Amino acid sequence: MKARVHIFLKPGVLDPQGQAVAHSLKHLGFDEVSDARQGKLIEIDLDTADAEEAQRRVDDMCKQLLANPVIENYDIELSA
Amino acid sequence: MKARVHIFLKPGVLDPQGQAVAHSLKHLGFDEVSDARQGKLIEIDLDTADAEEAQRRVDDMCKQLLANPVIENYDIELSA
Repeated sequence: MKARVHIFLKPGVLDPQGQAVAHSLKHLGFDEVSDARQGKLIEIDLDTADAEEAQRRVDDMCKQLLANPVIENYDIELSA
Repeated sequence: MKARVHIFLKPGVLDPQGQAVAHSLKHLGFDEVSDARQGKLIEIDLDTADAEEAQRRVDDMCKQLLANPVIENYDIELSA
């Protein structure tokens, strides 16, 4: 199965990349943009069919390598 | 409403970041990992309530700024 991990900076942590995106979009005429945040997206192919097990293992991966829990939040989305 | 834009390199384009992630995860003992890809995730707050209009505008943002259509694919996910 596939896991998609979305990693964002926690609210309150300065996000200069997101600010640059929001600023550039407004500059291009997209006036409806009020804010933007940039994060990381990691897609992982897993040799397992057990969704519960996959969720637990990907959570371990986030804690050990993919995310920095001090400044980042993450969520995991599994698909077959 | 909020838009989440997922941006990935197209299949066939070399993704050294994704390879490094897959390699590191295997090294940490996550042997079920067969492949990984790293992409960008951009979350945009929009001052509009019309989902169809938002989809069209965010698509324009991707084409003009957020994604490089030569080497990247993107998908857009809207939520209220």
